[in-house]
Amino acid sequence: MQLINPWSSQQYKDYAKLRDQFGIQEFKFDLPDAPPIFRRGVIFGHRGFEYIYRSIMKKEKFGVLTGLMPSGKMHFGHKMTIDQVAYYQRMGADVHIAVADIEAYASRGISLEKAKEIALEEYVPSYIALGLDPERTEVYFQSRRIEVKDIAWKLSRKVNLSEFLAIYGFSGETNMTHIFSPLIQVGDILHVQYEKFGGRRPIIVPVGVDQDPHMRLTRDIVDRWRMFSISPQDRGLGVFYKGEDVRKKLERAREMLKERGYKKFEMNIPYKALYILDAGKEDYLEVESTLISLEEEFNPNVFYPPAATYHRLMTGLTGGKMSSSIPESAIFLTDTPEEAKKKVRNAKTGGRATLEEQRKYGGEPLLGEWLEEFHERREWAKDFVKNVVSWD
Amino acid sequence: MQLINPWSSQQYKDYAKLRDQFGIQEFKFDLPDAPPIFRRGVIFGHRGFEYIYRSIMKKEKFGVLTGLMPSGKMHFGHKMTIDQVAYYQRMGADVHIAVADIEAYASRGISLEKAKEIALEEYVPSYIALGLDPERTEVYFQSRRIEVKDIAWKLSRKVNLSEFLAIYGFSGETNMTHIFSPLIQVGDILHVQYEKFGGRRPIIVPVGVDQDPHMRLTRDIVDRWRMFSISPQDRGLGVFYKGEDVRKKLERAREMLKERGYKKFEMNIPYKALYILDAGKEDYLEVESTLISLEEEFNPNVFYPPAATYHRLMTGLTGGKMSSSIPESAIFLTDTPEEAKKKVRNAKTGGRATLEEQRKYGGEPLLGEWLEEFHERREWAKDFVKNVVSWD
Repeated sequence: MQLINPWSSQQYKDYAKLRDQFGIQEFKFDLPDAPPIFRRGVIFGHRGFEYIYRSIMKKEKFGVLTGLMPSGKMHFGHKMTIDQVAYYQRMGADVHIAVADIEAYASRGISLEKAKEIALEEYVPSYIALGLDPERTEVYFQSRRIEVKDIAWKLSRKVNLSEFLAIYGFSGETNMTHIFSPLIQVGDILHVQYEKFGGRRPIIVPVGVDQDPHMRLTRDIVDRWRMFSISPQDRGLGVFYKGEDVRKKLERAREMLKERGYKKFEMNIPYKALYILDAGKEDYLEVESTLISLEEEFNPNVFYPPAATYHRLMTGLTGGKMSSSIPESAIFLTDTPEEAKKKVRNAKTGGRATLEEQRKYGGEPLLGEWLEEFHERREWAKDFVKNVVSWD
Repeated sequence: MQLINPWSSQQYKDYAKLRDQFGIQEFKFDLPDAPPIFRRGVIFGHRGFEYIYRSIMKKEKFGVLTGLMPSGKMHFGHKMTIDQVAYYQRMGADVHIAVADIEAYASRGISLEKAKEIALEEYVPSYIALGLDPERTEVYFQSRRIEVKDIAWKLSRKVNLSEFLAIYGFSGETNMTHIFSPLIQVGDILHVQYEKFGGRRPIIVPVGVDQDPHMRLTRDIVDRWRMFSISPQDRGLGVFYKGEDVRKKLERAREMLKERGYKKFEMNIPYKALYILDAGKEDYLEVESTLISLEEEFNPNVFYPPAATYHRLMTGLTGGKMSSSIPESAIFLTDTPEEAKKKVRNAKTGGRATLEEQRKYGGEPLLGEWLEEFHERREWAKDFVKNVVSWD
């Protein structure tokens, strides 16, 4: 089985195969006013997007968490993520951006000070220039947010070393900072559901498929800390509870579900089960969200399982992955239009319709105009940096 | 080779052998006004105590770091540590007490709230009753001190997984919180050398030998982050530097060493070395402390290697280790004199001089009187708890 590695620059050829291999669902949602990226198959898969779709359609609150690795320059591959984030923001989501300074330190040895500089000079103004609303976007640093680290410590009690080695392929030579850094990402993804950052609600994390290990790990951990579970029965839905005070908790669940309009219940204390006879699969999300509200009252470690969408990794100008560490592979958002033109001219393909035209005229620098506009917006955006960055 | 495990209750029979096996030095310092525990062979070994001895004799600043595991009740085994801490405090040391709430959570599943309660109800008043000066003692919680976690993250970059498995014997089933918790202890031990908590200075950590793995790990990590090293030469001491700007740094070292009175130097830039020709082994500590002051100017991760003393583990009343988790093995400091008398009477040995006397009269409850006094002092001590606990 192929191992997906968040720290490599490998390319994936067959996304459908990858999707099936890892149990990622095909993305087939018909979203209102969605940008082209949602329609062209660039977003090829998801985990748990149903919640986000429901939030968008019902205009209920949801959030977006995205991260930036302050290790190099921003390029067109990163733009894909921000296009999605901006769309969710237009649909009502609150936006949180994690500066992965601990991860940059762990995997690349970049100091926290350098990471801060890169984030504020390179990424944040570009995000705003790309269309994020600076008034409704919050940027924070992993290293400075105590809640992120606390989740990492506490929740990792239910993951063991073997699972870590299996998910990430770490070896004996891997340093301990690196080994623990995925748990910091779990903290990033989950902490935005704390009351202080917006409360329990569905969260979407748009990622490249190389980040899937973090999503699987986070969703697994959420699952392990849950005390309620639901499963479809011959008749209706079964709600199961694995904590103390079974009767009291199930009665409270019944009461809350009644308020949502369900009427027919059967309770089985020895089975720790409450059956909702007049509910079907289509009620799953509503029942689940009711149970999460209830569990929140007594379990500080309850969270909505975070949703993820997976987009294809952008092919670089040199044929491999577009990567900051291979300058000629990427158009950086801060390249001048001239630099970008030059890169495109030297690229593996330059965008002409036929090989003949390509040979005759050279690459077509389509991006030049777009970059000119982007540079203007980026200058304008710099003023907003101070509003969106959170220091605690 | 026997593995010392900080989380077990195993007993060690032959301390001299253990000492030799792990490279612990024999404790042979003649300390002024030292309590009996330093003289009776109870403290059987040390690592790096020379610095502490020097600080005591020269009346230079040094600190004590000790920890408490808020998982049970305090017994006479713990008292041994506090007797030492109180002595160092009388000799001028500042005292920091770490409440190991993250470790209690990681290894025993005790919630942070419960840990707080145990620490404040059970341990802190007892510490004061045992003679710590509440005005000059600081108690903090691992989970609430961001510097402790930051050191854990950052410095663990120079330890790899294999080393961890070798030191602690973790297996695939070990949970990730547990695996990372020793690094939190590294953070505890080192963070008190940050400016905010007293600055770079020698620190003594009095421990039972079962805690030696944490001391070895911490001292190793300190060593790996150091940029200066010293080694004795045929003539004098050699100072070596492994960072950038070799000439500049060595010239600065020479300058600082001149201020301390050394006069004869030889510099060898290709060897990255500065030889102090008029220094000998007896100057090691002074030269080293000069180099630490210098390194502090440009390396945030420089620390004095922490010193440790090792005391024998107290034999329990039932013959094994005195342990909170085996109530009949220990006299708890909060046992009433009557309870303690009863335990001693039922103990494996009751303190009579001969087997005959022991059979005839039963155990001798020598501790009763002492406990009565202790209980009075403990009540008095409760008022001081609020002064010594730090919440950040």
